[in-house]
Amino acid sequence: MSKHVENTGADGITAPTCAMGYAFKAIEGKWKLPVMYVLSERGAARYNEIKRELGITNMMLTNTLRDLEEYGLVNRTQYNEVPPRVEYSLTDNGYAIIPALKEFEKWGQLLLDTKEGGAQD
Amino acid sequence: MSKHVENTGADGITAPTCAMGYAFKAIEGKWKLPVMYVLSERGAARYNEIKRELGITNMMLTNTLRDLEEYGLVNRTQYNEVPPRVEYSLTDNGYAIIPALKEFEKWGQLLLDTKEGGAQD
Repeated sequence: MSKHVENTGADGITAPTCAMGYAFKAIEGKWKLPVMYVLSERGAARYNEIKRELGITNMMLTNTLRDLEEYGLVNRTQYNEVPPRVEYSLTDNGYAIIPALKEFEKWGQLLLDTKEGGAQD
Repeated sequence: MSKHVENTGADGITAPTCAMGYAFKAIEGKWKLPVMYVLSERGAARYNEIKRELGITNMMLTNTLRDLEEYGLVNRTQYNEVPPRVEYSLTDNGYAIIPALKEFEKWGQLLLDTKEGGAQD
């Protein structure tokens, strides 16, 4: 038997398909969503701005940005000034995650609200 | 240390808030979504049915079911027959994840489509 569930059921329920697995992999780890969030708020940001805002280490930020670039979620733009200036921004695909995040947040809120009979932060 | 971004921006973009973090934590790991998927398809299933369908080890399935129960996503019903029969099913909160999964799947599909088709900006 194959070990992963592969498709959408007859009732239209979404399974952990290939597309879903890819989506989750794209945002795997602790920092991808926070970095994408900062970029969605600022439009474009320099490395040190992101670093300051999140309190993230150089290693983690460098890896996170590289992964996001690999998945086509973040643009890296180098302006050939002296000294060169580099800015990061979300791609269209990066922005396209927002509806999914809104749904996830709603679900998380439902879980929190129904947990122990009441909302608590 | 307050290293996480906490709220929704003025433009309504969803940030990695508390609710979102909780949602992601609830489905963290390799097996939670597949198990939830099997239960959503079957309505209710016995331990060995889930195990067979997913090819998951006992340790992983036991842990996954326990975590899902803790988050209020899965019901465990024990029927006092001889021998006792136990069935697992999704709670209402468990089913409520489906709209979020659909959006995530759409996003993942977008990523996959633009990846091969030629996203080379």
